[in-house]
Amino acid sequence: MRPVAVIGAGKTRFGALADRDLRSLAVEAGEKCLKNGHLSPSQIEAFWLGNFAGPSFVGQNHLAPYVSTALGLEGIPATRVEAACASSGSAFFHAVSAVAAGLYEVVLVAGVEKMTSQPTARVTEILASAGDCSGEIKAGSTFPSLFAMIARRHMFQFGTTREQLAAVAVKNHANGFLNPNAHMRKLITIEQALNARPVAEPLGLYDCSLISDGAAAVAITSLERARDFTDKPVRVLGIAQASDYVALDQKPDITTFPAVRKAAEKAYKMAGLDAKEIQFAELHDCFTIAEIIAMEDLGFVPRGQGGPYTAAGHTALHGELPINTSGGLKSKGHPVGATGVAQICDLVEQIRCEAGERQVKRHSLGLAQNLGGSGATCVVSILGSV
Amino acid sequence: MRPVAVIGAGKTRFGALADRDLRSLAVEAGEKCLKNGHLSPSQIEAFWLGNFAGPSFVGQNHLAPYVSTALGLEGIPATRVEAACASSGSAFFHAVSAVAAGLYEVVLVAGVEKMTSQPTARVTEILASAGDCSGEIKAGSTFPSLFAMIARRHMFQFGTTREQLAAVAVKNHANGFLNPNAHMRKLITIEQALNARPVAEPLGLYDCSLISDGAAAVAITSLERARDFTDKPVRVLGIAQASDYVALDQKPDITTFPAVRKAAEKAYKMAGLDAKEIQFAELHDCFTIAEIIAMEDLGFVPRGQGGPYTAAGHTALHGELPINTSGGLKSKGHPVGATGVAQICDLVEQIRCEAGERQVKRHSLGLAQNLGGSGATCVVSILGSV
Repeated sequence: MRPVAVIGAGKTRFGALADRDLRSLAVEAGEKCLKNGHLSPSQIEAFWLGNFAGPSFVGQNHLAPYVSTALGLEGIPATRVEAACASSGSAFFHAVSAVAAGLYEVVLVAGVEKMTSQPTARVTEILASAGDCSGEIKAGSTFPSLFAMIARRHMFQFGTTREQLAAVAVKNHANGFLNPNAHMRKLITIEQALNARPVAEPLGLYDCSLISDGAAAVAITSLERARDFTDKPVRVLGIAQASDYVALDQKPDITTFPAVRKAAEKAYKMAGLDAKEIQFAELHDCFTIAEIIAMEDLGFVPRGQGGPYTAAGHTALHGELPINTSGGLKSKGHPVGATGVAQICDLVEQIRCEAGERQVKRHSLGLAQNLGGSGATCVVSILGSV
Repeated sequence: MRPVAVIGAGKTRFGALADRDLRSLAVEAGEKCLKNGHLSPSQIEAFWLGNFAGPSFVGQNHLAPYVSTALGLEGIPATRVEAACASSGSAFFHAVSAVAAGLYEVVLVAGVEKMTSQPTARVTEILASAGDCSGEIKAGSTFPSLFAMIARRHMFQFGTTREQLAAVAVKNHANGFLNPNAHMRKLITIEQALNARPVAEPLGLYDCSLISDGAAAVAITSLERARDFTDKPVRVLGIAQASDYVALDQKPDITTFPAVRKAAEKAYKMAGLDAKEIQFAELHDCFTIAEIIAMEDLGFVPRGQGGPYTAAGHTALHGELPINTSGGLKSKGHPVGATGVAQICDLVEQIRCEAGERQVKRHSLGLAQNLGGSGATCVVSILGSV
């Protein structure tokens, strides 16, 4: 396998973008990415699109050629990948693997979701189709309630507190406040988070990520060719995708996700790194508890220590291990199918030293963790400066 | 790229299988395939699942880990690919490419769809989501009406007749009649086809493929290792995926599909073969006109000659170029997401000389063509004996 680099990145603003349809979002991100990588459409040899539920949200399926032709990508393999909230993380994994293996020289990967055209109750129902619909969902669970159970158990087992969950939200809102592309640029306090209306106790409104529209795209080539396109290539040092049971009741322990551990182990091994060397990270904070568990599963902190570590400020923008400097799914927004590639764009921005007010000091080695469902899919990517 | 072989194949019966759910179908096909390839789940390093519209048909998304964990595949990358009716053809393309490139040693690819739990009108609506929902579909088109326009134009331009369309249906029903796994094992006459109730003129009931439930799976490894698993490996000689516009009105000529021509050209080149050397084929006869156009786009006959060639009997079971010896989508059935991999299973069966009453004499070189939508995705695979 040859080394691979990201040579272009582009994304739309995330938000409730009432005047925008799914295709125009994907095309905007794709065109920005091509421009950023000094690429013409004719140079792209294959296209992957991560999308979770276009058919349910906007009635459109067969989305890869629907988007690729609008981008002027002619005739090439155009493939939609669906892996719940890890859809575009998985698309990125397959695209990187294909270039690393020498199948293609230059490829494009995008992720997109248009969610806000549906009422919230319907959005929750569509999201629930990523759970086990013959079991937990049929019995009335939705993702907030599944993660509420996970949070309760984490509290019981490790003493995690609601204040620690709130600390995740406060931090991510503080970061997103500085991100011009974030969905909800609003500072919140611990008190606001604690007193917000309950969604599924112990999770309140500010423990939950946003329902957003948006898209993101990255272009990939071999490290060897990367400088033909950009003077700021970003190397993909390690990447892995892993899977696990869809239903929560099939997991022996709901406070850890084996797919995250497995993907992380492989990605670290491929990169020749361990967790302690990671300088900053974009983690899948679909709910505040998910960021805490991700920190633990990735080996950033021992099990049960994610809450205290966050509350101590270590994961803040200028802490020892900044997490979700973009604002995360919590404040930047969570257009489900776009999230995985958006995380890659966010790493690229930091590594290239283009994050403006949110720029971290140690920015040569970042990790992205993209989770599907309650842990049935996970993609971990480690990117670094060249 | 190293040579690659199919080492196991398994499929369910196709039909309106009221007592079966999506997962049990995929698991049955996967388990049969593992058994056929003398494989244990622990030997599988990656899994791809082709599925078009599980979320819409049965309310379940995130299908790859949902199926892989039920098959006992632990922790490996499990990825759903969606490309309309070419979903599992595309999954097969990516799986073959990954093994050819050395990313994995042994992988499993499955395709599945459970359609009959929805009423026919809803099925038609779900299928229409593979068209351009902001254009042609919004204006009232469905796939039967899109292919009716294509048929009308083909008739106008080349003189193709309704009798020639009917000849496709009669032949495929004759083949499916002999296939114990086919959905509709029923012989029909030209007169029955011509007098059937119209669906979208000039297409009548027998010009349209079936709404079916079913699944299929194949296992793949390198040619070098293939005989460790089976004494009947089948080589993948050439394979390609191509894309084109989703909307019919964006195509300059609706009687030919550029994605089919492009995929065929690449697959022939990879195999070092030309169209005349192909001995038998499984073509995507979602409508009778589609089989005729596929024959032309693949170079089996000159443009406009697909109809006369079929009516002359050349594509019959014992004709000079047997097409759809399985019965095709028309009689075998068309569980959308399963179709691409099922075609591969059908080629494997003929090449291994296991097709029973349907066995063709020249069976060492077969081609499968899997079409998505009205030609926006196409996968062409060429398989041969080792």
